[in-house]
Amino acid sequence: MENLNARILHDFENFLEENVKALCIDQSSLFAEMVNYHMGWLDSNHKRGKRIRPLLLLLSVGAWGADWNTALPAAAAIETLHNFTLIHDDIQDNSDERHGKATLWKIYGIPQAINSGDAMFAISQLLILKLQDHYDESVALQASTILNQATRDLAYGQFLDISFEQRESVSTQEYLEMIKLKTGVLIRTCTKIAAILAGQNQGIVSAAAEFGLSLGLAFQILDDYLGVWGDPSTTGKPASIDLIDRKKSLPILYGLSKSEEFNRLWKSSTMSVEEVKALSNQLLLINADSYTQYHAKYYTDLALRAFEKLNLGQNEYSESLVGLAETLLSRNK
Amino acid sequence: MENLNARILHDFENFLEENVKALCIDQSSLFAEMVNYHMGWLDSNHKRGKRIRPLLLLLSVGAWGADWNTALPAAAAIETLHNFTLIHDDIQDNSDERHGKATLWKIYGIPQAINSGDAMFAISQLLILKLQDHYDESVALQASTILNQATRDLAYGQFLDISFEQRESVSTQEYLEMIKLKTGVLIRTCTKIAAILAGQNQGIVSAAAEFGLSLGLAFQILDDYLGVWGDPSTTGKPASIDLIDRKKSLPILYGLSKSEEFNRLWKSSTMSVEEVKALSNQLLLINADSYTQYHAKYYTDLALRAFEKLNLGQNEYSESLVGLAETLLSRNK
Repeated sequence: MENLNARILHDFENFLEENVKALCIDQSSLFAEMVNYHMGWLDSNHKRGKRIRPLLLLLSVGAWGADWNTALPAAAAIETLHNFTLIHDDIQDNSDERHGKATLWKIYGIPQAINSGDAMFAISQLLILKLQDHYDESVALQASTILNQATRDLAYGQFLDISFEQRESVSTQEYLEMIKLKTGVLIRTCTKIAAILAGQNQGIVSAAAEFGLSLGLAFQILDDYLGVWGDPSTTGKPASIDLIDRKKSLPILYGLSKSEEFNRLWKSSTMSVEEVKALSNQLLLINADSYTQYHAKYYTDLALRAFEKLNLGQNEYSESLVGLAETLLSRNK
Repeated sequence: MENLNARILHDFENFLEENVKALCIDQSSLFAEMVNYHMGWLDSNHKRGKRIRPLLLLLSVGAWGADWNTALPAAAAIETLHNFTLIHDDIQDNSDERHGKATLWKIYGIPQAINSGDAMFAISQLLILKLQDHYDESVALQASTILNQATRDLAYGQFLDISFEQRESVSTQEYLEMIKLKTGVLIRTCTKIAAILAGQNQGIVSAAAEFGLSLGLAFQILDDYLGVWGDPSTTGKPASIDLIDRKKSLPILYGLSKSEEFNRLWKSSTMSVEEVKALSNQLLLINADSYTQYHAKYYTDLALRAFEKLNLGQNEYSESLVGLAETLLSRNK
C-alpha cells in the first residue's frame, strides 16, 4: 500500500511539476520562482504539502478499475487550486509559516503573492481543461464546472471564516456550514470527479460526493480536536495551538457558547502557558472534547456509510483508499 | 449607433447582474454586498465601469451577422474577470478610489477584498461555461481555454508591472510586453472569442485577435499620453496624473532613459505643481510626446489593417464597432 501511494505520488508530482512549469510562461522569471517556492520545487529537500487531495482522487479512480493516469490533469488542477487558496489564506490570516518555511507573502510581499495565487488559479483551470486529451468534451466541461463551483464555495467559506473572527458568537450549525464550504467541498470535488472520470453512474457519483464531503468534515473536526488536545510530539505543533492562535474552532466555539468562565478566561488571556492550560481544562470541564469527538464520529459514520455504496472493486487501490481514509480519520498528528 | 450601444449594454447589464447574483450563493450576505458594491449594483446611481470589453465582444458578434444574445455568457465572463483583476489591482497598488468611489478593500479590508476577487474569478469561469447552453461543447471549451490563458497572462503582466516599479530602468520593449499581457490580451480575448462564436474561420479568428490586441495596445499607449498631457476638463483626472502618481508609463520611461535632467527632477521631486510642470516640460524637450504618439499610431495602424481583414457585414453593428474603436483611439478623456 505504501508502495502504491508512493508510486502514484511520484508520477503525480512529476506530472504536476512539468505541467505547471510549462504554464508559467517564463521559467527564468521571479514569477516562476514564486510558484516553485510555494510548491516546494526549488530543491529536492524543499518541504511540500502532503498532496492528500490528488492521492484521494487518483486512488478512487484506480479503485473503480479505471486508469488513474488519464485522471492526472484533474488531480493536478485540484492540487494547484488548493495551493492558490493557501497562498491567499496566508495573506488573509497574516500567517508567517507553512510547511516549516516562510509563507510566500513574507518573502515576496503581499502584491506579488496575491498575483501568484491568481496565476495558479488560472493555471488550475488550464490543467482541468486538459482532461479533453483523454475524455469526452462533456466530461471535461462537467469537471471544470464542478471545480469552479467548489472554488466559488471555497471563497464563500473563507469569507464566513474571516467574518466569524469578528463576531461574538457563532453557532455550531454556522460553523459546520463554514467548514463544509472551506474544507469539505474541495475534498468532495476529488471523489466526485474521480467517479465521473471512472465512468460511474449518477447514484455512485452522488455517493462518492457524499463520501468526500463527510470525510472532509470529519477530517476538519478531528483537526479541531487535535488543535486543542493533540500531542505535540505527534502533531508537530505546539500544544493547544488553536487556543494560542485564538482560532474559533468547534471546541472553542462550544466553550464560548456554554461557559461563562471560559469566556472570561478567553477575553482576559494573554495566552501564557498557564492560561492556555486553564482554558483547555475549562473546555474539558464542559465536555467540549467529547462534543467535538461526537461530531467527528458523526461525519466519519456518514463517510463509511457512503463508502459502502461506492461499489469499488477489490484491488490494491481500494485497499489503499481505505488506508488513506483511516489515516485521515485517526491520525495522531 | 448610440441607441444600439445603449440597447446592448442595457441587456448585457441585466444578464450580468442576474447571473452574477445567482452565482453569489446568498444575496443577503455581506459577501454579495461586496460584489454588488464593486459592480455598481447597490443603487441605480451607483457608478460603474464602462463595460467596454463586453460591448466590443457583442458588437463584433453582431457585425458578423451572428446573434449577440447567445454570446452574453462570454461577455459577462470577461467583464466579471476584468473586475476581479481590478479588485486585486487596487489592493496591490494601494489605490483608494475607482469610478469615483472608495475601492473595495478600503471599505471591507484587504482579506475580504482578496476573497471577493477570488469568488468573482470563479464566477467568471462558471459564466463562460454557460456557453454550452447555446454552442457546441467544443466551442465552450475553446472559449474557456482562451479566457484562462488570458488570465494567466494578465497575472504575469501584473507581476511585471509591479516588478518594474522597483527597477531603475525598463526598456520600451519590456514595457510593451507588459502592457500587452496586462491590457492587450484581455481585449484580444473579446474579439477572438467573438469571431469563434460567430463561426468564423481560422484566418478571421486570427485577424480578430490581432485587431483586439493592437486596439488594446493603442488604447493603453494613448492612455499613457493623456496621463501626462491630457486636458483635465476632458479626462476628468488631474493634469499629469501619471507623473504625480510616479507611474512608469511609456513617456516617463522614455524620459528616464533619455534625459539626465528628467532623472534628476524625478528623483528629487516632491511632485509639487511646479515640479510636475517642470517634469512635463522636460519630457516635451526630448520629444517624449511624439515618441508616445508614434507608438500609439503604430498600433492604431496595425489595428486598422487587421480590421480590414475581418470580413464584417455592412450593418449597424459594424458601424457601431468602428465608432467604438474610434472613440477608444481618439478620446480626449
